[in-house]
Amino acid sequence: MKQTISVLVENQAGVLNKITSLFSKRAFNIDSLAVGVTDDPTLSRITIIVDSGNSVVEQVEKQLNKLVDVVKVRTLSEHAMIGRELLLIKVSATTSTRPDIMTMCQICGAKVVDITPSTVTMEIANTPEIVTSFEEMMRPYGIMETARTGMIALQKGANKI
Amino acid sequence: MKQTISVLVENQAGVLNKITSLFSKRAFNIDSLAVGVTDDPTLSRITIIVDSGNSVVEQVEKQLNKLVDVVKVRTLSEHAMIGRELLLIKVSATTSTRPDIMTMCQICGAKVVDITPSTVTMEIANTPEIVTSFEEMMRPYGIMETARTGMIALQKGANKI
Repeated sequence: MKQTISVLVENQAGVLNKITSLFSKRAFNIDSLAVGVTDDPTLSRITIIVDSGNSVVEQVEKQLNKLVDVVKVRTLSEHAMIGRELLLIKVSATTSTRPDIMTMCQICGAKVVDITPSTVTMEIANTPEIVTSFEEMMRPYGIMETARTGMIALQKGANKI
Repeated sequence: MKQTISVLVENQAGVLNKITSLFSKRAFNIDSLAVGVTDDPTLSRITIIVDSGNSVVEQVEKQLNKLVDVVKVRTLSEHAMIGRELLLIKVSATTSTRPDIMTMCQICGAKVVDITPSTVTMEIANTPEIVTSFEEMMRPYGIMETARTGMIALQKGANKI
């Protein structure tokens, strides 16, 4: 089961390494990880997706809480969160395929960010499922390269994590 | 100077830890880091932003190339790349501030993803500069919480990294 762990940490050198080594030592495979600063520049939020049972995640939460630089740890339930990720994708395009690619962009809410006579580069921000669907729809045109962020998430509603 | 390093790695447990410990040991502070799978599920792309001189980045590139799981390392020049990041932001909102918040969304291309009587949650995907500007514009309304990915980047034009 995919689980989303949101960790608020002090924005200091080495913190990310402490967290990844915690996962690595216990051989917990991280599906995706995203790190970014928060509105408070002294804090960063790390969003980690692991594919594990509840007991494993509880164990991870406990270990994370022991780290000095960790301010808060929260496991987010799939139904109570808004999860988004971002994909940049460059595909081959010709005069004859470009209209189809543009239609797909409109359907999925993707934006063209760069274009050449032989390629189109697009960005899409959405749920991981829709981002993956869009990528699959682009595959027949010839994917040249992609860059994808890990998922980030906030709790639904008016509460704070 | 901010430098963008794009690293293509084997998608295996522990790889991320090897890379973060390389930075941590040399006390290179990572400004932002984003990891995501690529269109080839055996490979992940890690995009790292460091604030360092050219000589430091060259050193990092060399060290990264020595790691077995690293397939390719490339430093991207600011002018030759498309860099994007994603922000989720929850702000306080009342009947009187909601129209202003919506105007700001339209100007900056942000989307509302959740709403309650007292809050609005939005997503914005854009260049780091525009994402930061949008966050600053939201500050007066009362930021409740944010989650931000690191920047991801692809080379402009028809070439592959």
